[in-house]
Amino acid sequence: MASFINRRPLTIEWGQCDPAGIVFNSRFFEMFDRSTWVLFEAALGVKPHELARTYGILGIPLVDVSANFVKPLKFGDEIEVASRVSEFRRSSFNVEHKIRIAGEIAVEGTETRVWAAHDKATDKIGAIPLPAEVVNRFSTP
Amino acid sequence: MASFINRRPLTIEWGQCDPAGIVFNSRFFEMFDRSTWVLFEAALGVKPHELARTYGILGIPLVDVSANFVKPLKFGDEIEVASRVSEFRRSSFNVEHKIRIAGEIAVEGTETRVWAAHDKATDKIGAIPLPAEVVNRFSTP
Amino acid sequence: MASFINRRPLTIEWGQCDPAGIVFNSRFFEMFDRSTWVLFEAALGVKPHELARTYGILGIPLVDVSANFVKPLKFGDEIEVASRVSEFRRSSFNVEHKIRIAGEIAVEGTETRVWAAHDKATDKIGAIPLPAEVVNRFSTP
Amino acid sequence: MASFINRRPLTIEWGQCDPAGIVFNSRFFEMFDRSTWVLFEAALGVKPHELARTYGILGIPLVDVSANFVKPLKFGDEIEVASRVSEFRRSSFNVEHKIRIAGEIAVEGTETRVWAAHDKATDKIGAIPLPAEVVNRFSTP
Repeated sequence: MASFINRRPLTIEWGQCDPAGIVFNSRFFEMFDRSTWVLFEAALGVKPHELARTYGILGIPLVDVSANFVKPLKFGDEIEVASRVSEFRRSSFNVEHKIRIAGEIAVEGTETRVWAAHDKATDKIGAIPLPAEVVNRFSTP
Repeated sequence: MASFINRRPLTIEWGQCDPAGIVFNSRFFEMFDRSTWVLFEAALGVKPHELARTYGILGIPLVDVSANFVKPLKFGDEIEVASRVSEFRRSSFNVEHKIRIAGEIAVEGTETRVWAAHDKATDKIGAIPLPAEVVNRFSTP
Repeated sequence: MASFINRRPLTIEWGQCDPAGIVFNSRFFEMFDRSTWVLFEAALGVKPHELARTYGILGIPLVDVSANFVKPLKFGDEIEVASRVSEFRRSSFNVEHKIRIAGEIAVEGTETRVWAAHDKATDKIGAIPLPAEVVNRFSTP
Repeated sequence: MASFINRRPLTIEWGQCDPAGIVFNSRFFEMFDRSTWVLFEAALGVKPHELARTYGILGIPLVDVSANFVKPLKFGDEIEVASRVSEFRRSSFNVEHKIRIAGEIAVEGTETRVWAAHDKATDKIGAIPLPAEVVNRFSTP
């Protein structure tokens, strides 16, 4: 089974670029975060700001992230961010983001996030098992 | 009576600048916001994240802001942000920020903020009167 | 003659909001800047990153900006940014931005920008007269 | 030989935090970038904006970055960013950043950067060998 992919077209903005004329690195992490919310909306049919309430969680906090900058992007570049869950584990998952320009990879990123809830027994926030109904929605037969 | 002035030295960062090599305008509003919190800390002796609890308010939300860009600032520029409350009204106040480089004005800004609390009677958030003890701390005899 | 209006739908992102759960003020100035570029693209048919070269200018730097925050916006809010040039002067102009949610004003902003070029005679950057062909494109008969 | 470590104290700002009340992830990459510039300034005695000209390079562009979020940080938290070059290779290097609060790790990050110049022969931008004089300044005997 392949994994559901969401594709977002974006245009690089002036305010996202630095004095070298290229996108400043922190801006890609804003794009990754937004792309993950939109991927979940596309797969689950739930608006990002309703995700927590819908599934009784606190959120999907980020625990690890990495990016590889292959090709600089500049003001006006028209890009595509393709995002998919590359792995689901018991209570965490990886989201892979590929940013392409004219079909070529510009930036690759991977986020590791957890399915987090408030544990009433311990009064702590922690990862809880991902519901099968959520995981299944990301599979494309 | 003059008004208490807080002065913060800052150095312009690479990531704050745009492809023209100068500070992107939104970054000045980050500086203004931070400078207001630090001004209140200096005047009141209360840490920014303890301000709300200390005075039983929700915060000091911004209702109006304006800026005038006189001189562009670039990566590495050493600046000073001088901030003071230029006017206290019943339940709102203006904070004036002057950013200087080598003694000359680069940016001038003015924020209008309110002293906001949750009104139990109406169950709404609104402006409440500023305590005299707060206002007095900003006066320098 | 009325002035050409460009309308952009946007959805408020998680990373644009602060601990009060509402959009942090500096983010609106990112929206204003982007909206001005897109307004010019819509009116002139010139991509933002080609504007300078097309008209032989250095850019349209911001000299003044102000904003009035009427209604807080939160994660997931679907907004519209309506932008238009509210006044053209000899070598500068004002752009008015109105951000609405469900038809109601949430934020109003005004930018003053100049039509800037490098003056070979003085070797300085300065405002030069706006071409009539540019100004005319913003008029809707 | 140990590697030179630069330590920067920082206080978490309101505008760096998200609706969960904790620092939004992209902000850490702004901190990492700034910390690398300041590390180089401390080790080499060269101001960040003079680094390129001093060594005849274009800059030290980022090619890879990763971060591990161990402990959330919130508004007002007083942190320390400790940065060092963890490895120098022929024309690239890794910078390791450890963000601590009250002595405990909150965030760990690693940047891979290259020593980049314009190659006149090929008219391309590329990595060139790091001068021994630069590398040596990061060693603490």
